[in-house]
Amino acid sequence: MAPRALDYESLNENVKKVQYAVRGELYLRASELQKEGKKIIFTNVGNPHALGQKPLTFPRQVVALCQAPFLLDDPNVGLLFPADAIAKAKHYLALTTGGLGAYSDSRGMPGVRKEVADFIERRDGYPSDPELIFLTDGASKGVMQILNTIIRGESDGVLVPVPQYPLYSAAISLFGGSLVPYYLEETENWGLDVNNLRQSVAQARYKGITVKAMVIINPGNPTGQCLSESNLREILRFCYQENLALLGDEVYQQNIYQDERPFISARKVMMGMGPPISKEVQLVSFHTVSKGYWGECGQRGGYFEMTNIPPKTVDEIYKVASVSLSPNVPAQIFMGLMVNPLKPGDISYEQFIRESKGVLESLRRRARMMTDGFNSCKNVICNFTEGAMYSFPQIKLPPKAIEAAKRAGKVPDVFYCLKLLEATGISTVPGSGFGQKDGVFHLRTTILPAEEEMPEIMDSFKKFNNEFMEQYDDRSGYSRM
Amino acid sequence: MAPRALDYESLNENVKKVQYAVRGELYLRASELQKEGKKIIFTNVGNPHALGQKPLTFPRQVVALCQAPFLLDDPNVGLLFPADAIAKAKHYLALTTGGLGAYSDSRGMPGVRKEVADFIERRDGYPSDPELIFLTDGASKGVMQILNTIIRGESDGVLVPVPQYPLYSAAISLFGGSLVPYYLEETENWGLDVNNLRQSVAQARYKGITVKAMVIINPGNPTGQCLSESNLREILRFCYQENLALLGDEVYQQNIYQDERPFISARKVMMGMGPPISKEVQLVSFHTVSKGYWGECGQRGGYFEMTNIPPKTVDEIYKVASVSLSPNVPAQIFMGLMVNPLKPGDISYEQFIRESKGVLESLRRRARMMTDGFNSCKNVICNFTEGAMYSFPQIKLPPKAIEAAKRAGKVPDVFYCLKLLEATGISTVPGSGFGQKDGVFHLRTTILPAEEEMPEIMDSFKKFNNEFMEQYDDRSGYSRM
Repeated sequence: MAPRALDYESLNENVKKVQYAVRGELYLRASELQKEGKKIIFTNVGNPHALGQKPLTFPRQVVALCQAPFLLDDPNVGLLFPADAIAKAKHYLALTTGGLGAYSDSRGMPGVRKEVADFIERRDGYPSDPELIFLTDGASKGVMQILNTIIRGESDGVLVPVPQYPLYSAAISLFGGSLVPYYLEETENWGLDVNNLRQSVAQARYKGITVKAMVIINPGNPTGQCLSESNLREILRFCYQENLALLGDEVYQQNIYQDERPFISARKVMMGMGPPISKEVQLVSFHTVSKGYWGECGQRGGYFEMTNIPPKTVDEIYKVASVSLSPNVPAQIFMGLMVNPLKPGDISYEQFIRESKGVLESLRRRARMMTDGFNSCKNVICNFTEGAMYSFPQIKLPPKAIEAAKRAGKVPDVFYCLKLLEATGISTVPGSGFGQKDGVFHLRTTILPAEEEMPEIMDSFKKFNNEFMEQYDDRSGYSRM
Repeated sequence: MAPRALDYESLNENVKKVQYAVRGELYLRASELQKEGKKIIFTNVGNPHALGQKPLTFPRQVVALCQAPFLLDDPNVGLLFPADAIAKAKHYLALTTGGLGAYSDSRGMPGVRKEVADFIERRDGYPSDPELIFLTDGASKGVMQILNTIIRGESDGVLVPVPQYPLYSAAISLFGGSLVPYYLEETENWGLDVNNLRQSVAQARYKGITVKAMVIINPGNPTGQCLSESNLREILRFCYQENLALLGDEVYQQNIYQDERPFISARKVMMGMGPPISKEVQLVSFHTVSKGYWGECGQRGGYFEMTNIPPKTVDEIYKVASVSLSPNVPAQIFMGLMVNPLKPGDISYEQFIRESKGVLESLRRRARMMTDGFNSCKNVICNFTEGAMYSFPQIKLPPKAIEAAKRAGKVPDVFYCLKLLEATGISTVPGSGFGQKDGVFHLRTTILPAEEEMPEIMDSFKKFNNEFMEQYDDRSGYSRM
């Protein structure tokens, strides 16, 4: 019988080519082990609430009231909700076209897009146009839409950092384009060297690829570095010279764990450089409610902002967004609340600040604990997590381990991470899922386990790593580490 | 200067080809008029809450509590929420991995998928496997994912009814495939003739197209017909003979306005036919929380269920779903609540039944009022809306109107609908946005305006239509209609 439309051999080859290690082999095995009753610590994905982070109270109160607007007429509402939450719920309900159950405009509610534009203006010091801001079901959906708009076929290339968050490689595969890698320098704290960029572009062009866009992830995922202003300037100059659109993944802009290098947006740097760059470089910036101290991943809220994109293109993007009608409305309200937070004097302000500071300060301590824990292992080196939510240590694997992995039919870091999972329940993602230079091996873990559990987790990692090295490294010393 | 990556001339041609009239020229003009202060009746999209339909109280109470789980510990919670809503909120929170703020599994929460499977089993009388059910951000996203999985390029074709809901044509364009039309027979109450199907497939094959799948929309959108069991049997036999996957868009399964032809699912008919059809035909069925008497469009919740899809394909679909991490969690809970509703004896049961019956009975009356209203115009014929949410009258346009449209550079039905919009504020979608036979013209309107406003809206339509005909039809009589 001929293969049917949904038999594997008939499927779209681009679908088959997609790889997404964050929920790949390791995650699937972890899910199995969990079903069998093993305690799993899911550090494979930046999902703070899954590891016990509590939601911020105020935004949840507001969205709960928006879901149940009949409560606003209940004389007892003040017993469960503070007055400022009630006022905010009324504010957002008035911005909808029929409450949370009605589709909004496909770009998102105009009132929330205005709040996002105001936020960007306050953050960067340059005005932003709500008509160029689209709300999305999480940042990933926005990234996918923009890449789908850009990529015409395999001769269109997109510069992507290596290591990278595999959303980019996956989406480029799905849309049939070519990923053009540029390497981040581990020994330079995962810095970006513009000479490497130039080489990558030259090589791609030599292969007949039209390089159309460049992705930056700032702060870095999985690498955790913050880009400096001068580095961003170099990147923008490069995009201008090479006629590349810049896609700025800035979803971790609130997750900063040091004071030397605060977050600075690509848009702010670009506007500050003046013409021709500020007028010519096409920039799309992405943000989300899933990260920061909010961590509202399950709500699926995000936005992208376009700069220097011509109106005819914006119309096309609007048209395609319209096919799926509307991003979910509750998350649009979370986005409004995130970009337009409480102010001193508001009834719920103190609690909000206490809760959000609590999350951020704990993340800062956890970033340090994790880096230090990894670096206390002889065969592990780890740059400090300056921002984002991940630690990306390099694991030096001895030849015997690489041999054993080969025999098991596994990539060496997959082999290591699987053993780690079986031994400790810690579910990480192998470095090969993000890309790395040949012959070096990493893993990515989030810094999100509860602070009080962190020492035990790092001890459990160290114990596993020592035993692994003892088993696979003939050189003496590991057993006494 | 060379065009930049996001200049119109550089964009993905498939993006440019997408057409989506539901939010096209008419909608954009209506939005402009609204900004200018004109009262617009948005009947372009099935968006019940936007036209005043109230949400069902109980599910909103449950989801509000899930958003604000700290209320569950508040001694006053019982003053605002009934005990069964509190119990249900606890039930769903226990199924999450960290409340609404945590990503779920990319297929959706296992517990809700189990509830969907149980619902399908109760509805159809055949067991359903939760592992083959994926929750999605609305049904559209699921349809798009499945079409993306199937379509390899322009020589892959998908049979789509004409008239059709333009999600299908839009998605097929976006993924670079070929739409293979089959015509529904207006004079046969929008019935589907399998001989037409055979012709469509033969013609497509003659052009070198591999027809891989067939779409049915039951109840029909925009056409409102319900497929009979014998018609579904013919379709399934045809899919088996022609080796086509069947995509069953069943989002309007709760919207039935007559008793002769109740909804019957494609899956139930298929399972009842026994082998080889029940074992061989690949079926994907779609459902949503946006329609029915829920109308929770803005929440973006849906599912698809796969039958006879091999595990390797399911793995591929899972992998691609994982790239965007998780459907939004609040809407997953709405889905759970929809498929697992209150039972007699539950505290909130009476209210729930009263509210849902109220919506459905009113829709039934509105379907009748609208059909009758259209049919009372000499130049309009309209099949009764057996199900779904739309009326799709044929408007007989006189040659002078067609001429005037031509001069204005508009398709005749676009011309008519624009005039209708300017005159009355009624925002419809021209039939050409859904496809229709050459030389006949339609419009689609939802039956969703508030029941008490319906007589006025139909009067306003009739008045406009008479004036239009008076202006463009030389034959006597319209002025006295």
